[in-house]
Amino acid sequence: MSKLVIVGTVAFDAIETPFGKTDKILGGAATFIGLAASQFDVDGAIVSIVGGDFPKSYIEMLASKGLDVSGLEIVEDGKTFFWAGKYHNDMNSRDTLVTELNVLANFDPVVPKNYRDSEVVMLGNLHPLVQLSVIEQMDDPKLVILDTMNFWMDNTLEDLQKVIANVDVITINDEEARQLTAEYSLVVAAQKIIEMGPQFVVIKKGEHGALLFHKDEVFFAPALPLEEVFDPTGAGDTFAGGFAGYLAKTGDYSFENMKTAIINGSALASFCVEKFGTERLLELSSKERHQRLQQFKNLTQFDIELT
Amino acid sequence: MSKLVIVGTVAFDAIETPFGKTDKILGGAATFIGLAASQFDVDGAIVSIVGGDFPKSYIEMLASKGLDVSGLEIVEDGKTFFWAGKYHNDMNSRDTLVTELNVLANFDPVVPKNYRDSEVVMLGNLHPLVQLSVIEQMDDPKLVILDTMNFWMDNTLEDLQKVIANVDVITINDEEARQLTAEYSLVVAAQKIIEMGPQFVVIKKGEHGALLFHKDEVFFAPALPLEEVFDPTGAGDTFAGGFAGYLAKTGDYSFENMKTAIINGSALASFCVEKFGTERLLELSSKERHQRLQQFKNLTQFDIELT
Repeated sequence: MSKLVIVGTVAFDAIETPFGKTDKILGGAATFIGLAASQFDVDGAIVSIVGGDFPKSYIEMLASKGLDVSGLEIVEDGKTFFWAGKYHNDMNSRDTLVTELNVLANFDPVVPKNYRDSEVVMLGNLHPLVQLSVIEQMDDPKLVILDTMNFWMDNTLEDLQKVIANVDVITINDEEARQLTAEYSLVVAAQKIIEMGPQFVVIKKGEHGALLFHKDEVFFAPALPLEEVFDPTGAGDTFAGGFAGYLAKTGDYSFENMKTAIINGSALASFCVEKFGTERLLELSSKERHQRLQQFKNLTQFDIELT
Repeated sequence: MSKLVIVGTVAFDAIETPFGKTDKILGGAATFIGLAASQFDVDGAIVSIVGGDFPKSYIEMLASKGLDVSGLEIVEDGKTFFWAGKYHNDMNSRDTLVTELNVLANFDPVVPKNYRDSEVVMLGNLHPLVQLSVIEQMDDPKLVILDTMNFWMDNTLEDLQKVIANVDVITINDEEARQLTAEYSLVVAAQKIIEMGPQFVVIKKGEHGALLFHKDEVFFAPALPLEEVFDPTGAGDTFAGGFAGYLAKTGDYSFENMKTAIINGSALASFCVEKFGTERLLELSSKERHQRLQQFKNLTQFDIELT
């Protein structure tokens, strides 16, 4: 088992969907990544920042999942990052109602000394310079995984390109891959992104699954067809956390093992959307997770007989 | 091996894509279905209608593929159905420029006597009453497969519902499934369609693959990620023809075998889009087809190790 460093937001979310509405609840990329990775009992550390308004009980909960929180800075006189959003009826698009950066505006991440030798680094969606700073603090990581979004392409493209040049895996959604490369074909877009640095490109297509590209190989992981998506918040981070957590757990960074890692990420994401925020991940048992992995197997396996 | 009846248009298409433009070339649902099914050396009959302007060489070509053309009516003083369309840059949407029904307006299909005992019937996209007439002429088919589209939902919904109640399998795209059931979730939509009659529902998602629903089971077939789609015309019909042809060839109508049938349909559709119209299907070798089936296998197979 390898150690895992997770950087990303730890935040408050307020969510509105056609099914209901929440007050400020626990959210943030690093939170979902950490909770997903913790399903594999990895030795993971969260590097993030919160304000004095952040409940100690949340931090204790993260620690109780085996996550090191010594790199979670608490600014006692500051306020925690807050995001509020409202999903449309089809659950595929949303409006951001509030984004308060608060303490995140001055976040200078510090990787705890005893995690600088971690093999796996999961860079959750954040300012590219924060992501770069984390990479620079690491001794000699074997696998650096980057998640990012179109906001950084629009506003800090040069910094983002520096990060992209320094990671092994990038996870990105289909529209973002097209924006980053100005190519419509995802196959061509992935090839162009590989030329930018990463050996592995994961393109997330939401309800349409995910593609993994490496050299001239490609793997397709379906999303589980669901009757209902209750709340998509955190699904992408949960996917990334399951992916990174499975790889850290197994210490095998081959293309073959990444296929299984993606299926594990997809399985965890399929749970995440069943309830608000982190609720479903917190009550998830390994038996349920194993059953869902079998569902993914049944969903995609077939025999070919050459006729 | 079972006999297969194919009903659908045999037509002229004029196609414009970002890559080029054709004059009137061979097209039509029954044409693509027949050419796809003929890859499996099935004993298939095309039931359709053309005008005196339809080249005899096209009919000879279909016959040379082992397709019975005695049910292909020729109206010497009539004109063949003609469709012209233009694809947008993303190849996912198109404008219909011309639709001339011509002889199709008075099409009264006659299934050749020696094909009324066929086990498999593939109803290509056509007026629901024409499709019903074909079903009624059959002795006791084991598998009736229906392809249809939103045009018939908009204009002849009651007739379409009668057909749906009398088929075993329906193939339909995602937006049409939503329209037919007024449900956004494809899982719920498929369940509602199963209640309307068919035991098996295939929902086509274009570049995102296809889903097969049966009772409480579901199978997902990916589309092959392509660098370039040259011309999508006929891809859906080719998919249906490959699906029906494989099932007729094997005579096995189980859910398990339908998974393989869908992969075969997807593989043939992935060839269809590589060139204009029927061009790529006509030059396709079984070796190429087998290689592509292996690509689909590589694309989707993974190991799970429960951690």
